[in-house]
Amino acid sequence: MGSPERRLRIALTLGDPGGIGPEIISKALSRADVRELGKFVVFGQKALIEADVEVSDAGHPVPAEAAHTHRPTADGGRASVAWILAAIEAAQSGDVDAVVTAPISKEAMKLGGHSWPGHTEILKEKTGAERAVMTMVGGGLRVALVTTHMAVADVPAALTREDIHDTTTITDNALRRYFGCRAPRIAVCALNPHAGESGMFGDEDEEVIAPAIESARAQGVDCTGPVPADVVFHQALKGNYDAVVAMYHDQGTIPVKLLAFETGVNVTLGLPIIRTSPDHGTAYDIAGQGIADPGSMVEAIRLAASMAARKRAPD
Amino acid sequence: MGSPERRLRIALTLGDPGGIGPEIISKALSRADVRELGKFVVFGQKALIEADVEVSDAGHPVPAEAAHTHRPTADGGRASVAWILAAIEAAQSGDVDAVVTAPISKEAMKLGGHSWPGHTEILKEKTGAERAVMTMVGGGLRVALVTTHMAVADVPAALTREDIHDTTTITDNALRRYFGCRAPRIAVCALNPHAGESGMFGDEDEEVIAPAIESARAQGVDCTGPVPADVVFHQALKGNYDAVVAMYHDQGTIPVKLLAFETGVNVTLGLPIIRTSPDHGTAYDIAGQGIADPGSMVEAIRLAASMAARKRAPD
Repeated sequence: MGSPERRLRIALTLGDPGGIGPEIISKALSRADVRELGKFVVFGQKALIEADVEVSDAGHPVPAEAAHTHRPTADGGRASVAWILAAIEAAQSGDVDAVVTAPISKEAMKLGGHSWPGHTEILKEKTGAERAVMTMVGGGLRVALVTTHMAVADVPAALTREDIHDTTTITDNALRRYFGCRAPRIAVCALNPHAGESGMFGDEDEEVIAPAIESARAQGVDCTGPVPADVVFHQALKGNYDAVVAMYHDQGTIPVKLLAFETGVNVTLGLPIIRTSPDHGTAYDIAGQGIADPGSMVEAIRLAASMAARKRAPD
Repeated sequence: MGSPERRLRIALTLGDPGGIGPEIISKALSRADVRELGKFVVFGQKALIEADVEVSDAGHPVPAEAAHTHRPTADGGRASVAWILAAIEAAQSGDVDAVVTAPISKEAMKLGGHSWPGHTEILKEKTGAERAVMTMVGGGLRVALVTTHMAVADVPAALTREDIHDTTTITDNALRRYFGCRAPRIAVCALNPHAGESGMFGDEDEEVIAPAIESARAQGVDCTGPVPADVVFHQALKGNYDAVVAMYHDQGTIPVKLLAFETGVNVTLGLPIIRTSPDHGTAYDIAGQGIADPGSMVEAIRLAASMAARKRAPD
């Protein structure tokens, strides 16, 4: 065991102040089963949080009008970035054990003078990570994505042996370090239907994915594939695999969101810090009405706490 | 009501005699709940069927060695095609109300001198249908595919407004005629993640799919989209839609096979006859061992019977 005397410390970033972040964080922190997971520090605006919790505004108080405007604003964008940067620093210095991020607005960040398209890019740059792997967890599945937000037309040419290999080894490493898997078994999805039927429908499965699997196996990773994508998630649910590596966004998000629409969680693997987030956006359209569902935020906090506990006490 | 005095007549084609077709048909027909669905006629080889049922060999008896060889053979390929052709004729003449086909082998058909790649092409040619829509039914979902067995790299360019429009209208028509939906609601999937986020990831959703939806709506079809593919199946399961139109194979098969791996059914819409089939192949590797699961065949028979009953008595 590690140091059971100190409680886990979990950072929550408030996200865009005009989105549903403040509400889902307040709702999550009002639950006793969440509070007992650790000590929480919210990087955000005290006035926006309806919960008795430590709040750091990271020197970026939000003007009242921005905090109650449910659309992208420059103030909101600037503040949400400042809160993320402060939380990353806290995680890197060891002051917190994990970071859970509420949704931000790309447009607000742009209005605020920032050019990052999203959390992942900020996290990569600030932690110096070579690769960040977007992973979906929910419904009994863990799915790591080789490519993320790109057109389907661009996916086949974008897939490289190196990216598939690295996504697989990062997933293997994370399963051991954060998920309690001593001997992880990973399935790697095929790109094409029926895994291409020996090259009849596309050659990527044989030419790119299979060699990447071979090279990961040569490094000791227990990985299988390319497995047809309409077979692999059923097998993973049955317990044949601890995680699935998917080639493109919808290939991985369709099964997770089908099984766990309200409770799916994003986790970024490959970083030196633990970072999870709910799997939805700012939802400006319903913000401020008290109707936002905190389910995914609660699961994101749970997963962050579980990963942090496993990292601290690997046995 | 139509003619309740005549029982439904359902044709079952035995498929490749060396595959699991004979076994799953025999097992399905041994169940009382299946037998009560109608009167069955098997187009196949009497000696291969362990069930008390009418069998027509369509003039193509299979030599004993081919019938007990669990690999593709010329005799098996020729016989399986002959049985399919006879069943199609029986359906077109009104002698049977529906056709349920057991799996065939593309390779065996080739060895037998036929160039059809699969059932769908035979059905289209012999019935003169302009378009056949591969549709998966299972787990509470009905998913029609715009494209089927092609590389993902070829899908974006292959998607046309006409194909999406026609797939949607054929699905609408089938829901009314065979599935008891008086006012079908159809969701049409986006191709790209998040439906392309206003063109940020690919322009097919705006340029091809949205106009196809508009033109189907103009013809009175209640269809919605393009809906992000990782959202739409959850919504369909909740009851928001009666069917989903998917752009490519795995987009539609991932959710259906995740929810109904052993019981998913294929149905070909757009034909003048009713045709369903189990959603698996010949499975030569387990044929002849008595271990094949008849679940998907049973559901294929059930769906065929239900569609035939609705067609006969639409109200």
